[in-house]
Amino acid sequence: MVGGGKDAFIGAIHRIAANIDGLIELHCGAFSSNPETSIASGKEFFLPESKCYRSYPEMFATENSIPKEQRMDFVTIVTPNFAHFAPAMMALDYGFHVVIDKPMTLSLDEAKQLQQKVKETGLILCLTHTYSAYPMVKQARKMVADNQFGAIRKVMVEYPQGWLSTLSESEGNKQAIWRTDPSKSGISGCMGDIGTHASQLAEYISGLKITKLCADINIVVQGRKLDDDGNVLLKFDNGANGILVASQIASGEENSLKIKIYGEKGGLEWHQMEPNTLLVKWPDAPTQIYRTGNNYLSDSAMFNTRTPSGHPEGYLEAFANLYKNFALTLIAQSEGKEPTEEMIDFPTVADGVRGMAFIENVIASGKSEQKWFDFKI
Amino acid sequence: MVGGGKDAFIGAIHRIAANIDGLIELHCGAFSSNPETSIASGKEFFLPESKCYRSYPEMFATENSIPKEQRMDFVTIVTPNFAHFAPAMMALDYGFHVVIDKPMTLSLDEAKQLQQKVKETGLILCLTHTYSAYPMVKQARKMVADNQFGAIRKVMVEYPQGWLSTLSESEGNKQAIWRTDPSKSGISGCMGDIGTHASQLAEYISGLKITKLCADINIVVQGRKLDDDGNVLLKFDNGANGILVASQIASGEENSLKIKIYGEKGGLEWHQMEPNTLLVKWPDAPTQIYRTGNNYLSDSAMFNTRTPSGHPEGYLEAFANLYKNFALTLIAQSEGKEPTEEMIDFPTVADGVRGMAFIENVIASGKSEQKWFDFKI
Amino acid sequence: MVGGGKDAFIGAIHRIAANIDGLIELHCGAFSSNPETSIASGKEFFLPESKCYRSYPEMFATENSIPKEQRMDFVTIVTPNFAHFAPAMMALDYGFHVVIDKPMTLSLDEAKQLQQKVKETGLILCLTHTYSAYPMVKQARKMVADNQFGAIRKVMVEYPQGWLSTLSESEGNKQAIWRTDPSKSGISGCMGDIGTHASQLAEYISGLKITKLCADINIVVQGRKLDDDGNVLLKFDNGANGILVASQIASGEENSLKIKIYGEKGGLEWHQMEPNTLLVKWPDAPTQIYRTGNNYLSDSAMFNTRTPSGHPEGYLEAFANLYKNFALTLIAQSEGKEPTEEMIDFPTVADGVRGMAFIENVIASGKSEQKWFDFKI
Amino acid sequence: MVGGGKDAFIGAIHRIAANIDGLIELHCGAFSSNPETSIASGKEFFLPESKCYRSYPEMFATENSIPKEQRMDFVTIVTPNFAHFAPAMMALDYGFHVVIDKPMTLSLDEAKQLQQKVKETGLILCLTHTYSAYPMVKQARKMVADNQFGAIRKVMVEYPQGWLSTLSESEGNKQAIWRTDPSKSGISGCMGDIGTHASQLAEYISGLKITKLCADINIVVQGRKLDDDGNVLLKFDNGANGILVASQIASGEENSLKIKIYGEKGGLEWHQMEPNTLLVKWPDAPTQIYRTGNNYLSDSAMFNTRTPSGHPEGYLEAFANLYKNFALTLIAQSEGKEPTEEMIDFPTVADGVRGMAFIENVIASGKSEQKWFDFKI
Repeated sequence: MVGGGKDAFIGAIHRIAANIDGLIELHCGAFSSNPETSIASGKEFFLPESKCYRSYPEMFATENSIPKEQRMDFVTIVTPNFAHFAPAMMALDYGFHVVIDKPMTLSLDEAKQLQQKVKETGLILCLTHTYSAYPMVKQARKMVADNQFGAIRKVMVEYPQGWLSTLSESEGNKQAIWRTDPSKSGISGCMGDIGTHASQLAEYISGLKITKLCADINIVVQGRKLDDDGNVLLKFDNGANGILVASQIASGEENSLKIKIYGEKGGLEWHQMEPNTLLVKWPDAPTQIYRTGNNYLSDSAMFNTRTPSGHPEGYLEAFANLYKNFALTLIAQSEGKEPTEEMIDFPTVADGVRGMAFIENVIASGKSEQKWFDFKI
Repeated sequence: MVGGGKDAFIGAIHRIAANIDGLIELHCGAFSSNPETSIASGKEFFLPESKCYRSYPEMFATENSIPKEQRMDFVTIVTPNFAHFAPAMMALDYGFHVVIDKPMTLSLDEAKQLQQKVKETGLILCLTHTYSAYPMVKQARKMVADNQFGAIRKVMVEYPQGWLSTLSESEGNKQAIWRTDPSKSGISGCMGDIGTHASQLAEYISGLKITKLCADINIVVQGRKLDDDGNVLLKFDNGANGILVASQIASGEENSLKIKIYGEKGGLEWHQMEPNTLLVKWPDAPTQIYRTGNNYLSDSAMFNTRTPSGHPEGYLEAFANLYKNFALTLIAQSEGKEPTEEMIDFPTVADGVRGMAFIENVIASGKSEQKWFDFKI
Repeated sequence: MVGGGKDAFIGAIHRIAANIDGLIELHCGAFSSNPETSIASGKEFFLPESKCYRSYPEMFATENSIPKEQRMDFVTIVTPNFAHFAPAMMALDYGFHVVIDKPMTLSLDEAKQLQQKVKETGLILCLTHTYSAYPMVKQARKMVADNQFGAIRKVMVEYPQGWLSTLSESEGNKQAIWRTDPSKSGISGCMGDIGTHASQLAEYISGLKITKLCADINIVVQGRKLDDDGNVLLKFDNGANGILVASQIASGEENSLKIKIYGEKGGLEWHQMEPNTLLVKWPDAPTQIYRTGNNYLSDSAMFNTRTPSGHPEGYLEAFANLYKNFALTLIAQSEGKEPTEEMIDFPTVADGVRGMAFIENVIASGKSEQKWFDFKI
Repeated sequence: MVGGGKDAFIGAIHRIAANIDGLIELHCGAFSSNPETSIASGKEFFLPESKCYRSYPEMFATENSIPKEQRMDFVTIVTPNFAHFAPAMMALDYGFHVVIDKPMTLSLDEAKQLQQKVKETGLILCLTHTYSAYPMVKQARKMVADNQFGAIRKVMVEYPQGWLSTLSESEGNKQAIWRTDPSKSGISGCMGDIGTHASQLAEYISGLKITKLCADINIVVQGRKLDDDGNVLLKFDNGANGILVASQIASGEENSLKIKIYGEKGGLEWHQMEPNTLLVKWPDAPTQIYRTGNNYLSDSAMFNTRTPSGHPEGYLEAFANLYKNFALTLIAQSEGKEPTEEMIDFPTVADGVRGMAFIENVIASGKSEQKWFDFKI
């Protein structure tokens, strides 16, 4: 693990998610750019001192030098955005697979270089778009792919949060400080942080690609350096239209990602905060409540579920699905087997490239006087 | 009543809404452009034959000729859009107050003429934007006006319906036939029919005015002549941003008008289909569920409620609030009293003008290559 | 109308409900046991002075003496329980049909006398169990009757309210004063007031009859004279079991009547406070959300609906369904026609007798040491 | 681990729950009464062969014989009910702490013996009543304990499931087979399996103890040997009344445990299937929606939460809270520290004794003609 020291938010989430299925064990780490913090963190995570590295270059070099069976199998990078690219490139160069947080890099250009590196090395990069790993999201995607709703006509995705309603970065909130700092986060705040989740989810479920957008990108809280809010009109490759709203100044909201998709013959609705429910709507029949863990669900939904129906799964299980599928894919490959369709269903470097393209396009559109902006990669 | 013959949808709604409080009685009508249908309808509504007119000009002239105590007090116009302007102008000319469906006219120009006529005659025109008459919408407006949320920063309003997901106008659906016909409905279908409700509600609750918009207006169902779907970026006069979605091709949706508004200090959320609940959100305290009929509500909410808490009110009660307030205003005036603030809280010709301006601006923006379009009246 | 003077709660509800469909007009009234209040109330309701009677005997006698076309068609009795029996018997004796609030009388014995009188006179008595008149309750009953759930096995009905959580009757609350007074309400408070609604609803939807019960009847608030809370175990005539909870000390609850019914093949759930939704549950398929106003509903549900789907109906519309069906039945009879099955679907004197029997049995069981108590009429 | 072989339901849940926080590692196991299955299962769980025991006596003896630092720290017993007592007693005798599924034993008598053994050995027994470990349940308990609702007056707990609506035990359903078999499950099916969860939750949140009950216990599905349904009237030690419903024939229900508690000054409501929401109700103020992970929550709720608000936690996290608190208690003790109040907040052998007493009392009451039955231990 690179980053994710003892007080980091997302590092702890990664460790839990990786633990859940007993397939993955924390092996070593360079948990902080500060060597002492790194070592102290590692000890707290029950690692032997020899596995608490002072820096990630040291970790990669040392691990690479020990016998294969004893070295780490892959690297998880959970640093802020600006510190994704270099360790990811280096990990791949050393021959380690990579799990990395979104947005994948600081720029689309870096993302493309990383994609090229993945291609050259034949290694696997898993990007942690957690929301696409919920069972009912899998179900939604499958029902769309099976043409149960006919051609998709409209996609409405919204992601309101309220935690940046005040200038928290001036009040000592660590998460706020780096996420609103262009040198750490890149050219976008809100769109990079949560807009990318929304666009990835929209494309993942609908099976469509955004081709045009028209963005209204805002800095609502005075004194902030990056966008904290935006509304985006969308066009998709099959002609469907859409709307994407991402906001971190929606005061009173927690993490209220919701998506609605409408096709010729019906529609669906999913809310991240009640993730075990998928509403499926029909013009001439009652709306149906699909629920996690029931026999009537698709194989892909069931594959990503651990508990019987009525025993709610949550964010950590969705996160764990990413790790589980990634690990099962590695295991299959190491055993010379073809991983199944369900195993390889996790976001990869290609999603990372699209995410970075989304950020660059949406910010450029926001600054443009032109109405429709082609989504360029 | 002008229009609203025996098979008309909205005519029946108007009659029920007017009946509820026992303040208004159906006195006479020209219920159809077909004299025989008009007379047959009137009989069905228990009117004496002398009060079933063959045409609205006949009705206005005859009623005007009888003593004031025996003539009708006001006219309700429930014809399709294209047949609003002429009877409304004539009614005002004869000295009758008017209740009229939205959108008020076929064009902004007609709307302005009607506004001018209202001004000249000193009569009252009530426009039936039903949704703004729900008790919890009154509550929401009051809480915003009382600055409980601080300055408003963001407005999200969506109005998905599914009833035009197919080309119903070619399948004999009467509502669909006139609502998708430019000669009956004007330059817009969906935006005129339900987009105007959404924009009126957004402005009513927020107390803000739309100043700019950027519209994506779509005809989704092949063969349709008017828009059946649209997504609109909004800017308001205080700098707030917003998004308005109206769609009649959201397959599987009923009448799912929802609004969320966020201010500096909190936010609110209201769903038309569960209208007795208003969610009030705070950054550092639990979300509150405000419910119709409780003592903690504002006077304006209570004034528009008939039943104790827990006894749900619905669409017809909201509609009846329009009639009740309009009637109480007329009664107060006839008694030489000043109507209260609660009584005069119904949409008027000014809302009708803004609604027509919304239609013309949003359609023009939809056709424009320019990103931001000034909202012009 | 007997009772229901200007400050009475339920009188106003009755007038609105009767108005809604334009089938019924307030003709005359004896609105109070105080002649002056009666006359003042009548004037407020726009009645001519000649139709504001000083007492109900005067009203019945006078109305009976005028030509049939000019006299009232039926009597609505909206007095407190203790003043139901005498006017109802007298109205029937004078040949007037009767609408009456539940519980029908002060005692089961009175109820049986009334039933006998109805039988003798051939007149119609409509008992206002409002909750059984909601469209989705009609739908639920139909689905059970059509055997969609197989044999019914379990019925869970609960009716918590919070308005008597304190000793409101000592704080001047008029509703509380009479409803907790044995001389006005009879032998039961909570069970009579709302337990009867719950048991009627359970029997109405399930099509079953309670045959045994085991009741825990409580006076929770110190100083109260009648029960304000109770839990009851039930057995039905087909062997199904059930539970009925009624409470007026469920602090923080509004009027939260809910029912769940389970059969061999599925179940259903309905909440009065969101009455346009009926959940239909299946063991091997997604739960379905049946919603008022949709084409897939039964004729009985549609017959009791006024607005299109997505335009919520509420308590007043349910109440109005009672009046509408009652009125349509009278009209059909007066025209020598057979009223339809839908028209005659309103609670009658038979429901009133069962309701009074429920009260007497449940209170007796509450006092008994015996576990199972036969439901006796 | 004793039991929980590769195809067992609850064993997998235990392993995930124990893994989540990285505090506990699967060390060894006797996963089946069949030695070969046990060894095969252990291998599948990545255990070295030396740690896959052929039986639990072998495991206890062997582990006990190796140095303390290398041996297992505690035993988890996840066998069916009938195979709880013997291994638990033996484990305690060997000096191992115990985690055990509910119901704790086959009989109250066994439970008391186990309690005595725990007392004598000074070891710790953790009973996995998962539902009491949800953050919002902790919050509910704290608010009651802090007297925010005044004296508790009424407790309504219901636990409907539908999975035994048919005679699944004759259709090869393994869970159904042992859970409906008296020799494996004891004297009760439904009440033992889920009624104990409901009663434990009711007592845990309310802080009250059941003192009397009156039970209607049913075998609804023909051919079943143990109860699959029941309704129970309750009295608590402070005079409060209550109702408990548990059913496994509620066709179409998943795992719908819900509880409502009312005090003098307000009430609360929690649903297991949406566990991150706690409704808090007040007579004169809007209902509040308390949500997991927010700063306004109690320390006990926050201590049992891993993710920020809006990132839903589920059943596995609740289960993991049991293991985490148990492990933290063991760690504190091993370090000679006093565990905190939050650490020791997990169900123990005392809950197990109460649970077994609940089963014996409720079944006896179900068979009795007597109305109120004293809750005896």
